[in-house]
Amino acid sequence: MEFNKIDRPVLILDEFRCKRNINRMVQKADTFGCEFRPHFKTHQSAIVGEWFREIGVTGITVSSTAMALYFADHGWDDITIAFPFFPSQLSVLKELQEKCRLRLFLNSVEDIDLLSKTLTKPLQIVIELDTGHSRSGIHFEDEQLINSIISAARKTSNIKFHGFYVHEGGTYKAKGNKDIQKIITPTLSIYRDFKKKYPEALFSLGDTPSTSVLNEFPGVDEITPGNFVFYDWMQVQIGSCTLDDVALFAVLPVAQNKYAQNRVILHGGAVHLSKEFLDVNGQRNFGQLIEWHTETPVVLPAFISSVSQEHGILTGNSLEMIDNSVLICPIHSCLTANLHNHYITTDGKRIEKRVLS
Amino acid sequence: MEFNKIDRPVLILDEFRCKRNINRMVQKADTFGCEFRPHFKTHQSAIVGEWFREIGVTGITVSSTAMALYFADHGWDDITIAFPFFPSQLSVLKELQEKCRLRLFLNSVEDIDLLSKTLTKPLQIVIELDTGHSRSGIHFEDEQLINSIISAARKTSNIKFHGFYVHEGGTYKAKGNKDIQKIITPTLSIYRDFKKKYPEALFSLGDTPSTSVLNEFPGVDEITPGNFVFYDWMQVQIGSCTLDDVALFAVLPVAQNKYAQNRVILHGGAVHLSKEFLDVNGQRNFGQLIEWHTETPVVLPAFISSVSQEHGILTGNSLEMIDNSVLICPIHSCLTANLHNHYITTDGKRIEKRVLS
Repeated sequence: MEFNKIDRPVLILDEFRCKRNINRMVQKADTFGCEFRPHFKTHQSAIVGEWFREIGVTGITVSSTAMALYFADHGWDDITIAFPFFPSQLSVLKELQEKCRLRLFLNSVEDIDLLSKTLTKPLQIVIELDTGHSRSGIHFEDEQLINSIISAARKTSNIKFHGFYVHEGGTYKAKGNKDIQKIITPTLSIYRDFKKKYPEALFSLGDTPSTSVLNEFPGVDEITPGNFVFYDWMQVQIGSCTLDDVALFAVLPVAQNKYAQNRVILHGGAVHLSKEFLDVNGQRNFGQLIEWHTETPVVLPAFISSVSQEHGILTGNSLEMIDNSVLICPIHSCLTANLHNHYITTDGKRIEKRVLS
Repeated sequence: MEFNKIDRPVLILDEFRCKRNINRMVQKADTFGCEFRPHFKTHQSAIVGEWFREIGVTGITVSSTAMALYFADHGWDDITIAFPFFPSQLSVLKELQEKCRLRLFLNSVEDIDLLSKTLTKPLQIVIELDTGHSRSGIHFEDEQLINSIISAARKTSNIKFHGFYVHEGGTYKAKGNKDIQKIITPTLSIYRDFKKKYPEALFSLGDTPSTSVLNEFPGVDEITPGNFVFYDWMQVQIGSCTLDDVALFAVLPVAQNKYAQNRVILHGGAVHLSKEFLDVNGQRNFGQLIEWHTETPVVLPAFISSVSQEHGILTGNSLEMIDNSVLICPIHSCLTANLHNHYITTDGKRIEKRVLS
């Protein structure tokens, strides 16, 4: 694959780095006695899924019923849907139960009743705890609701309460390793309290920053990170990884070189990268320019300062070195990957992935 | 189609309003003696394309060679690719020339030479003028470069200089009809000057705000808007249209109702809406809550204040009225539409569209 001759944006997947990220997280979970149930929402690819299976992974996490169907159809039979259950999902859940075992996120006693009446096969449920970031789940102080859901599950013959889950959104705003640890500490403390109250429950932790940097997981029985499979420029800035860990890049053709004005127009916009940006001293960075020196990626002093649907404007210095294409470290690899139907490995293999629906 | 029973995000296309938007722009172009060469990057659907063809449209605009291939394969034989040509496109352009006539954007004499040697079939070229917004194209004051490209084209047997194009990005920051007119005035003035210097050239104007609100197009020979086919909440705020003109909506299932805390968790995130937002007094709006009273859409006092990959957090008042799903006016319909492989019309027809590649 000659990247300098591409005629449209392409995502490059570094298979070596990706497998190294997977291996590292598997070993970490092993060392600290945690189950590893990776989130597949980032890569959304059956082929990348096989790289996890080869190393012994059997249970996975996804973020929608549609994604669960895709992976169930590719032979995964133990799937957590890490998104609140809602009643209109009953029909697709029945379909899914023909293909795999399910673990669902539940927030009400009514939903327990509905599921136990409608779905006849066994089902595990998880309670997502809102530890203060106000996304989905039940606030950790609402013990009355938590207890009533657990009691309701006990009364059914087919629904088993599995445990608790937290996706600690706060760590995505961290600046560095110590800051991540500081932000995750209250969650770990809530988990230790809960462990005393619910000794039969298993405790799951979802975010890439804390699972990447923590060297032990006190009170945590299972980790479910997703982004770590590729990482991205946001995770480098947070301190979850270094640039040398990033496994997904966009190669963008140069559409027009205006380097005399400190900019290069790229074929690569919001439909190729997403509109995720990092704020850098009041300037928006939609993608970081990098370069490969032998085996190591190097940061260059330019970034994509604006995107429209198909255009990206690269702004910075050293632009006179740029030839026919550039290598960009994406800001948020989950959203960038979601916009493509395949990856190309550094040695030219095409890796198919789930297409939007 | 019972929208209250959907189990995943769906885009609703209001065929009546969409066709009304198309008719209105066709009539406007007719009345003011302009060619109408609509941009198809917003809908990206062969079926919606047919609605244009039924009303007499024969030439179209697209933003990539990939999109040109899709529409050429659906019978469009006169296509402008409104994106700078770059040399690695030669092979796909040869393929395209087997299917349709092409009009390309060119920025250098070298590219004229390359195209005239490599592509044997006739080709039209357009010079995109940068009127100060620093996206792609040639700055309008760089007359030396403009003249040398036109001269170089004259010397070839197969390349014909067609005219000039401006996509006036400034109008997307306008606040109201008068502001749009004020922002577009300098561009129209540049066009009038250019018309004296290049009497044989045709002049094209691309943006939805000015083509929507201008009541005449002095000096403009062709209009190429795209977004107007659906409009969106951004265009309502700019003043290009009213909410009653918007033809594309997202229906999002309610995942968890926390209305006591003034929020509802929706199944609808960055992979369904995009991360485009409007800043409203320092708060981000990723999607506006609306409702239908009989035939008319009504704005409700709530909006999506944050999105993750699959979650949207609806924040505001009157949330206690919300049942199983909500109707959201997207911020930027081009990017929202790009994330889906079909639309559903209000009477339940499925409208296929181009899938990402």
